[in-house]
Amino acid sequence: MSNPTEPVLEMPAPPLVEAPELHLPEVVPANSPSLVFELHQLFRSTLVHDDALGRVKAIAQQLAHIQHVPPKTFEHVLLEQPQLVVFAADHGICDEGVSAFPQEATRQRVLYMLRGKGSANSLATLNGFQVTVVDAGVASHLLPNDHGRTIVPLLLRKIGYGTRNMVLRPAMSTSQAVAALHAGMDVVRHLPGNVIALGDVGVGSTSCAALLLVRLCGVPLEDACGPGSGLDAAQLKIKLEVLKLALMRHRKATEPLDILAALGGFEIAMMVGAMLQAASERRVVIVDGFVATAAALVARALSPNVMDYLIFGHRSAEPGHRLMLIHLQVQPVVDMELRMGQGVGTLLAWPLIKAAEHLINQE
Amino acid sequence: MSNPTEPVLEMPAPPLVEAPELHLPEVVPANSPSLVFELHQLFRSTLVHDDALGRVKAIAQQLAHIQHVPPKTFEHVLLEQPQLVVFAADHGICDEGVSAFPQEATRQRVLYMLRGKGSANSLATLNGFQVTVVDAGVASHLLPNDHGRTIVPLLLRKIGYGTRNMVLRPAMSTSQAVAALHAGMDVVRHLPGNVIALGDVGVGSTSCAALLLVRLCGVPLEDACGPGSGLDAAQLKIKLEVLKLALMRHRKATEPLDILAALGGFEIAMMVGAMLQAASERRVVIVDGFVATAAALVARALSPNVMDYLIFGHRSAEPGHRLMLIHLQVQPVVDMELRMGQGVGTLLAWPLIKAAEHLINQE
Repeated sequence: MSNPTEPVLEMPAPPLVEAPELHLPEVVPANSPSLVFELHQLFRSTLVHDDALGRVKAIAQQLAHIQHVPPKTFEHVLLEQPQLVVFAADHGICDEGVSAFPQEATRQRVLYMLRGKGSANSLATLNGFQVTVVDAGVASHLLPNDHGRTIVPLLLRKIGYGTRNMVLRPAMSTSQAVAALHAGMDVVRHLPGNVIALGDVGVGSTSCAALLLVRLCGVPLEDACGPGSGLDAAQLKIKLEVLKLALMRHRKATEPLDILAALGGFEIAMMVGAMLQAASERRVVIVDGFVATAAALVARALSPNVMDYLIFGHRSAEPGHRLMLIHLQVQPVVDMELRMGQGVGTLLAWPLIKAAEHLINQE
Repeated sequence: MSNPTEPVLEMPAPPLVEAPELHLPEVVPANSPSLVFELHQLFRSTLVHDDALGRVKAIAQQLAHIQHVPPKTFEHVLLEQPQLVVFAADHGICDEGVSAFPQEATRQRVLYMLRGKGSANSLATLNGFQVTVVDAGVASHLLPNDHGRTIVPLLLRKIGYGTRNMVLRPAMSTSQAVAALHAGMDVVRHLPGNVIALGDVGVGSTSCAALLLVRLCGVPLEDACGPGSGLDAAQLKIKLEVLKLALMRHRKATEPLDILAALGGFEIAMMVGAMLQAASERRVVIVDGFVATAAALVARALSPNVMDYLIFGHRSAEPGHRLMLIHLQVQPVVDMELRMGQGVGTLLAWPLIKAAEHLINQE
C-alpha cells in the first residue's frame, strides 16, 4: 500500500517479460604451452640473470600468450589503439547512507569526465588512450552533447535510473542483469584496437564490490568493507550494518548471475560483459581498482578462462581490494594507494605494460 | 715480499700525494612551508576524496617542492631533458668468489649498453631519455668509439682498474674516493635538463651495497646480504663469510667518507657525487635499485638534505634493498621484482613521475 503523500520514485519498473537468455561469448585459454620454451629462450638472450626483469617479464609473457594464436609461431606483441571505457551508474543502496558523497556526485563526475577535465582524461591524453563514457544507469538524465560542452563520447546504455535498494530487494532484476551484461559486450564489440582499459564511476559502488567479495570469495564482511572514498569510523559502522542486512536479505543468491543481480550494479554488470567480450576477441583487458576487480570476480565465476586476458592495473587503498587480488591470485602492476575509479589506475599501469611490449619486441 | 712467479696485478698504485680536500656542494632543503597550503588547495579542486590520488599526489608534491624556489610563487612543474647516467666499475672483492658472473661480464654489459642493445637503452628511447655511460673504474680498457659500433656516449672517468679486494685493504684510498665523488659531481654539472636518473653496472656491486647497509644503518649482515644476480645457497654462504671478513677488517671505518673508501666502489662513490651535485642544482634525482640506493645512504650521511631531491624508482628483489628503503623512510615508485641495475628501475618509474607532473599542472 503506497502512501499518497510520498514522492513517486523515478524508477522504471523491471520489464514484465521473462528474463532474456544470457548469451556469453566463448573465451579460450590464452596460454599456449608451445610458447613457453620460446619465450624462455628469448629472455635468456640478455646478459643478465634469468629473472632480472622480474614482473616486467611476467607481463611480457602474458601479452605474448594473449596475442599468440597457435599454430602460428610467435612473432611480436603489438598493442594498438588502446581504449579507456568508463561505465557510470548509481546505486539504490545509497538511500541507506553508505557513502561519503551524495548520489548527485556521480552525475557531476561524469560531466567532468565528458568535458575532458578528470584526472583520467588527462592521463588518457598523455598515454594516447581514446576515452568512452557509458551511462550504464546514472540516476539522472545525461545528454551526449550537453550543450556543446563535452568532448568525450557518451554512450547511452542506461538500464535504469540507478539500481534498487538491495537491502529491500535485489539491486537488479535478472532481466536487467542480463541486459547489462549484453550491453557491456556490445560496447566492446564496437570499439577498435586490442587493448581495453575498464574504469567506473558511481557513488556507492564500493558497497557492491564488498558484497560481491563476501559472497563470491567467502571473505568476512568486516574485512571486505572499507571506508570507500572517505567515510569516518561512525559512518563505516553504519555501512557495515547496512551491508550485513543486504547479505542476509539475499542469502539465497549463490549462483554468479543471481549474485550479480542481487548485490551488483549496472556498471559492474557491464564491465563483466565487457571483460568476457574483450577476452573472447583476444584483447588485453586492463582492470582498474576495487569495483572493476569485483566485476572480474563475477567474470571469472562465469568463465574462468577470462583471467588469462586480465591485467590488474593497481592495488587500491581500499582494504578489500587487497583481498580480491589475493583471491584471484594476481599481482597488480602498481600500488599507488589510489582511492578513485575512473580508470586512473589502468592509465598509471599502462606505461609499464608498454615497457613490457617494448622489451619483448626488442630482444 | 712478492713472489716473482706471480703475475703483476694491473692495478694503478694509489697516488702518493696527500688526499685532496673534499668539496661538496651545498644542498638546501627543498620543502618550503609556504607551498604546503597552496598544494593542498590545488588537489582539493577535484571532485574526489582528498587522498584519492594517493602516492601520485605525494610525488607531485615532491616535484613542486623541488622546483619551487621561494619567494617566487608556485606556478607549475616542468621536467625537461631527462638524463640517464650509468656508472660502471669493477670490484676487487670479486677475487673472493662473491658473484655469479665473472668480472668480464661488467665490460660485456657496458659494451652492450654502448651499442644501444641493453634493456635500459630500449626503455630510455621509449621514454625520451638521453643515455650517458661513465667508466668509473672498469677492470679493462674501454674505448669511447669501439670501432664505430657504439651509439651511446662513454665518459672516461676511470679512477682505477677496479677497486682493491676489500678483504685485504680498503677498496679505495681516500684520494680515490674523493676523486670519484668529484668526478660524479662533474659529470652531472655538464649534463642538461633538470632530471637525472642514476643507474650502475658492475659485477660484485651488491657486496658493496650490503656492506654499506650494514655499516651505515646497523642492519645485521645476514639480513643485508642476498643472492645478487643469481647465487645459489652454497655460494651465498661463501659471500656471507667474505663480507664478514671485510666488515671485521674495516671495523674502524665509521665516518661516511671512510666507510665509502673502505667498503664502496668507484661507481657508488660517483653516484654519491652525482646525487649531491644534482640536488644542489635543484634537479630531480631518480635512484635505481640496491646499489644506487646504497649510494643514497652515503649521500644522506654526507648531506641529509639530499633526500628531498631523491625519488626512489623501484624496489629490487634483493632482500637488502627493502631494508635500505625502510631505513631511508621512503617508498619506491614501483615494485617489479627486478634483479638488475643499469637504471632500468628508474625508467619504469619515470612514466608515473610524468603522470604526477601532468596532474599537478592540469588542475
